[in-house]
Amino acid sequence: MTDRERRAWAYLAAVAEPPCAPLVALVEEVGSVEAAKAVRTRTVPPHYQSVLVATEARAAVDTAARDLETCDRLGARLLTRDDADWPAWQVLGLDQAETAARGGAPLALWVRGPESFADISERSVALVGSRAASSYGDYVAGLLAADLCASGWAVVSGGAYGIDGSAHRSALAASGTTAAVLACGIDRDYPSGHAQLLREIAQRGLVVTEYPPGTTAAKHRFLTRNRLVAALSSAVVVVEAGRRSGAANTAAWAKRIGRPLGAVPGAVTSATSVGTNAMIADGDATLVADAAAVIALAAPDGHDVRPAAPSRRTDGLLPDQLRILEALPARGGLSVDEIAFVSGVRTQDALRALAALDFAGLVDGSDGTWGLAR
Amino acid sequence: MTDRERRAWAYLAAVAEPPCAPLVALVEEVGSVEAAKAVRTRTVPPHYQSVLVATEARAAVDTAARDLETCDRLGARLLTRDDADWPAWQVLGLDQAETAARGGAPLALWVRGPESFADISERSVALVGSRAASSYGDYVAGLLAADLCASGWAVVSGGAYGIDGSAHRSALAASGTTAAVLACGIDRDYPSGHAQLLREIAQRGLVVTEYPPGTTAAKHRFLTRNRLVAALSSAVVVVEAGRRSGAANTAAWAKRIGRPLGAVPGAVTSATSVGTNAMIADGDATLVADAAAVIALAAPDGHDVRPAAPSRRTDGLLPDQLRILEALPARGGLSVDEIAFVSGVRTQDALRALAALDFAGLVDGSDGTWGLAR
Repeated sequence: MTDRERRAWAYLAAVAEPPCAPLVALVEEVGSVEAAKAVRTRTVPPHYQSVLVATEARAAVDTAARDLETCDRLGARLLTRDDADWPAWQVLGLDQAETAARGGAPLALWVRGPESFADISERSVALVGSRAASSYGDYVAGLLAADLCASGWAVVSGGAYGIDGSAHRSALAASGTTAAVLACGIDRDYPSGHAQLLREIAQRGLVVTEYPPGTTAAKHRFLTRNRLVAALSSAVVVVEAGRRSGAANTAAWAKRIGRPLGAVPGAVTSATSVGTNAMIADGDATLVADAAAVIALAAPDGHDVRPAAPSRRTDGLLPDQLRILEALPARGGLSVDEIAFVSGVRTQDALRALAALDFAGLVDGSDGTWGLAR
Repeated sequence: MTDRERRAWAYLAAVAEPPCAPLVALVEEVGSVEAAKAVRTRTVPPHYQSVLVATEARAAVDTAARDLETCDRLGARLLTRDDADWPAWQVLGLDQAETAARGGAPLALWVRGPESFADISERSVALVGSRAASSYGDYVAGLLAADLCASGWAVVSGGAYGIDGSAHRSALAASGTTAAVLACGIDRDYPSGHAQLLREIAQRGLVVTEYPPGTTAAKHRFLTRNRLVAALSSAVVVVEAGRRSGAANTAAWAKRIGRPLGAVPGAVTSATSVGTNAMIADGDATLVADAAAVIALAAPDGHDVRPAAPSRRTDGLLPDQLRILEALPARGGLSVDEIAFVSGVRTQDALRALAALDFAGLVDGSDGTWGLAR
């Protein structure tokens, strides 16, 4: 990519508030350099008038040079549609007409960290949930993140307090891959209390945002950011959510773009599980209790790794045999006739069942009486 | 009911280990007194040989007088198919051939307490779960029971430690109606630690069992008892269950006989919620978080109408009647002798069956031949 192209991309990435589907379409049609020139000179093709509206406030202020300098200083990079690392967003459902109106694919992304964006988008799960998580939610987020990483899955989240932070931290502790998708510029630490955590993710995982440097976090940006969290992952799991929670928005995005949605159940007495329990009860989310269930959701063609229930010695016994076993006293023995009476199994059947139970080592017979095997 | 009939019922209720579908069919066909005589003298009709097998161990021991004396002493009563209070079990799906093999309707029930069996079976929910419940499970069972009672629903359970006990106790505390279905005789306190609780239920609610006095609780009886817990209720809710739990058996009965099944979610870190979370995850149970959700499950139309099992015109027909119905051609008619030959039912039995089928509107007779009703 030439410097001129890079400058054009940086200008376009800042000139309209993302997501801006008409601007993406213009760039797709005429290329970044021509598109930047068209926006700057206010001379877009006739059917792109909406681009003028979307860019009017910022068209005259070119922050590209400054933004790229910030990017370089942080060791970040600007990922564009011209990059080999650019994911097939149309596969992710974000180029479809239905979603284009509400979001659509990003124009460009600012990323920071050693991990490949394409690799992460191929094998990752989003773990999201309340900022005001309970200790249960924090624990389960950490457990799922560690187990998912151990199975080779990356953990995507939003870098927020609560569930997001627990998921990121646990993935890092497990030496796994984690990506934080921000609702602010790549140079901003939001929330400020997670400055150190975001630095670590930038050093060992990947920090991602579609907002140019200097952009502050804002409510509408969290909602927009959530669509990228869902699109970047093979499944979205809400670990904890109260009655009203930002996680519900990410969950809605997952449904909208066709991502499987899981939710961790919780006590019906817990305010932080009201939302997740409701998603499950309403049939919006699948109950997931462990990482194996999450993986089954994210990769439904994989084999079922759910552990089988442990077996008991009385498993597989026939009804008559069970009835006779139950009829035997805790101590001592009974005659066959007594056993037949107590169990209600007729004598010849009782004898046959006792022989089978004897063979299975469950009963002992001596002196004409039968008792439980010691 | 005459003393003789009552004695016959008591004898029949003890002579085979319940459930015994062939014995129920015999009693339906010939009445209790004749059935008792046939079993005692080992002279059942040819197609009831399985009754001889089922009753062989106990036929010679008549405990009827003793059982009725115990019943009277406790202020209990023997409820039979001749009673007005006897529920329409065929509506409950238990008389259908598919379930008859595994369970079927009870022959008779020993009940103790002021509440009406029929009333309870019309408006009740079963709350079941682990004996080794957590404080969370006990709390939620109590909460649901109290709220259900406040809405006029009876709470059915199995009288066991843990969830069962919490549900019964809370229903009593809320001055609601509760019924305990036992896996032992009405004279037994099982578990012994619940002697006082069972006494209270017998004083203010209803204790129910299909086992004659003196019968001890045994594992296979819990499984058999569970089908009555499910059949007696409009919905079954598992409050807490570990990986292997008796509640899973009650849940399976609920599915089998068409009762809506609910489960209370719990922390994925709690061993006592592994079973309930799995039922929800597997789509076997609906997540219920409060009494309103339970009532919506039990009365989905908002009315207090129990959803009827799908009925067929041939439901409730006796074996001979079914065989004759099968023998009739799609068009035209047959003489009684021809019908007897084709069906293998002897002529006088065929005549009796045809009369019953005519009465039920299933066959038409004219000019000495019988055919399917149009």
